[in-house]
Amino acid sequence: MTDIQIKHQEQRQRTVEMLKSQGLTRALFTHPNTFLWLTGFAPPAQMGVNPFNGGPSLVYVEDGHFTIIAIDNFAGGLAGLQDDPDCTLATYTGFTIENPLNATAKMLDTLAQATGGTVIGRIGVERFNLPLSIVTAMGTTAEFVALDSVMPTLREVKTAEEIALLRENFHLSDVGHAAARQAVVAGNREVDVFAAVSSAIYKEAGQFVPIGNDFIVGYRQANIGAMPDALEIRPHDSFIADISTTYGGYWSDSCATYYAESPTEKQRKLHQTVTDALDFAISLIKPGAVAGDIDAQVRDFMRKAGHVVYPHHTGHGVGVMGHEAPRIVPDNPHVLRENMVIMLEPGIYFPGETSIRLEDAVLVTADGCAVLTSHDKSI
Amino acid sequence: MTDIQIKHQEQRQRTVEMLKSQGLTRALFTHPNTFLWLTGFAPPAQMGVNPFNGGPSLVYVEDGHFTIIAIDNFAGGLAGLQDDPDCTLATYTGFTIENPLNATAKMLDTLAQATGGTVIGRIGVERFNLPLSIVTAMGTTAEFVALDSVMPTLREVKTAEEIALLRENFHLSDVGHAAARQAVVAGNREVDVFAAVSSAIYKEAGQFVPIGNDFIVGYRQANIGAMPDALEIRPHDSFIADISTTYGGYWSDSCATYYAESPTEKQRKLHQTVTDALDFAISLIKPGAVAGDIDAQVRDFMRKAGHVVYPHHTGHGVGVMGHEAPRIVPDNPHVLRENMVIMLEPGIYFPGETSIRLEDAVLVTADGCAVLTSHDKSI
Repeated sequence: MTDIQIKHQEQRQRTVEMLKSQGLTRALFTHPNTFLWLTGFAPPAQMGVNPFNGGPSLVYVEDGHFTIIAIDNFAGGLAGLQDDPDCTLATYTGFTIENPLNATAKMLDTLAQATGGTVIGRIGVERFNLPLSIVTAMGTTAEFVALDSVMPTLREVKTAEEIALLRENFHLSDVGHAAARQAVVAGNREVDVFAAVSSAIYKEAGQFVPIGNDFIVGYRQANIGAMPDALEIRPHDSFIADISTTYGGYWSDSCATYYAESPTEKQRKLHQTVTDALDFAISLIKPGAVAGDIDAQVRDFMRKAGHVVYPHHTGHGVGVMGHEAPRIVPDNPHVLRENMVIMLEPGIYFPGETSIRLEDAVLVTADGCAVLTSHDKSI
Repeated sequence: MTDIQIKHQEQRQRTVEMLKSQGLTRALFTHPNTFLWLTGFAPPAQMGVNPFNGGPSLVYVEDGHFTIIAIDNFAGGLAGLQDDPDCTLATYTGFTIENPLNATAKMLDTLAQATGGTVIGRIGVERFNLPLSIVTAMGTTAEFVALDSVMPTLREVKTAEEIALLRENFHLSDVGHAAARQAVVAGNREVDVFAAVSSAIYKEAGQFVPIGNDFIVGYRQANIGAMPDALEIRPHDSFIADISTTYGGYWSDSCATYYAESPTEKQRKLHQTVTDALDFAISLIKPGAVAGDIDAQVRDFMRKAGHVVYPHHTGHGVGVMGHEAPRIVPDNPHVLRENMVIMLEPGIYFPGETSIRLEDAVLVTADGCAVLTSHDKSI
């Protein structure tokens, strides 16, 4: 839906600079989120392990040149890289009738061609996502340098391409919220609200879109979040709809609280407090603000309003994961920068009775922030 | 929904026997499908990597005793193991406000407590799913013995518990097919059919259920399979609905072909041929039959009927993966055994014009097979 021809070039450029700064000429990336971030393509995840796939999709970098190693049926999704002179697509055959069952061997062969076989010396890797099979294939002369904690920090500031895709996702969750507001009526179950939300999002996107996170009535004992169950909504129940979509691999997130028929007077007051807390949180977002300070101030706002402070984060970054850096949590020294995208989600919870949470996404701008979510969060 | 108190004991017993036969006293399992098979619990997969999780869920076995290592919010799903004296649940804290970001360290600590720290000597592992971080934690004195290809063979014959869960899944895909049949009308798009199918399945299950596989109109150029897009259905178009569900981590699978308004005369004949081919395939299923022979005979049936033979497998096992052993593919010497569950799915494809596929699940019985799918596959 965007016009950009070569996908995610800036991400690869940032990676090349990072490798230089680490004194590395080579790296092999194996984390699925890194693959998505470096290529712009998200292999489908919703059904678990792909039976035809030979293993994780890989990105091998050597002297600034990227080799993308993936099963052949991902070739269409990777087409946005083919005009990049610094990128080679190396797809391997997954399934053929004649030779159906050896995709892992083909994957390792393709990797060996890219690396030239045994690796000698230092190579950057993601230790928590590098399988022993690939370690062995690279041989005992390789010296593995951990980049696990480096890659997420490179992703914090979003590119124009990513912000465009995030906006498309926030539009989809906005559509989901309109459906949720209609479906929260006495007699419906949590799962009926989810069915209405997901159907609206699938139809708007014109395709399947993985959807999360929380679809719960307020009288649950653990009423912060969960996927829907068969619990029935009763008159005056609160209902948290915390909706994520992952269109194009990037996440939206967003929360509103709806009421069957009408809220009670208590719920009405709580809703106003959470609305004020969210507005206050948004007012704190600007370049230079410190994540831990924002967290502390919003918790303090809740405390001063006379409430038990929510037992979860105040917010989080969003991108190729639903929750990523910067986390808006206590004592986090992370400093906000322009073009970060941050979720803010204060809530108030009375276990077994009612729960209210409201959440917006904001884009950090040069001198403040812009709200990216447009769902109606009023009562 | 089943009454069995301790879950998946037979699976763990089979694993203990396998380890004995390999001369192993210890193993560490890291593949998500193995975790599901050994515990009966499937961590949610549909949204990709869990941001709070410290890494893969693990099963460590030593001298016949199993230690299940997983994040604390999986504890409820693992409750079916707590009465097994041969099982210890070792959950680690994922996210707390005070200490939100070190789940991987906690996971490795929990593993070290189970193994006693450094591992000396032989230990069975899944090399394609064992991350370098865990290899390093076990130390250089460990000798890793690959069990990657062994574990799937242990899963081929299903337990009573698994067959009950597969039946629940086949019921859900049957419900999806009834909705698909209604939704395949001119003017609807592929995604509208998917929305109707998924909504019906969510409501029947009373919860979210991951759903695949193919929702495609016959005039696609590549008209074997794909997730739905925004293509519109026209009068007399064929529509393949190949529906999988994964309720409780186990898969259903099933395919039917529907027609907007009515099929053409050509489609009617093709539909009859595919019906006959599926009936013929089912007639071949019994203990002792060889997978490659079944494949050859069904392909031969298609060839004799005057058609280009389908460019995919004739069928496959189903369980914790959508496609697992025994694969019904050319030259596969696998012999069928009682209580295997096998999908059979012949089809005929005219690219860009029309495509017809029908698929049933069968349970191998003592002297033949029983069909587990009940969806209407007539025109």
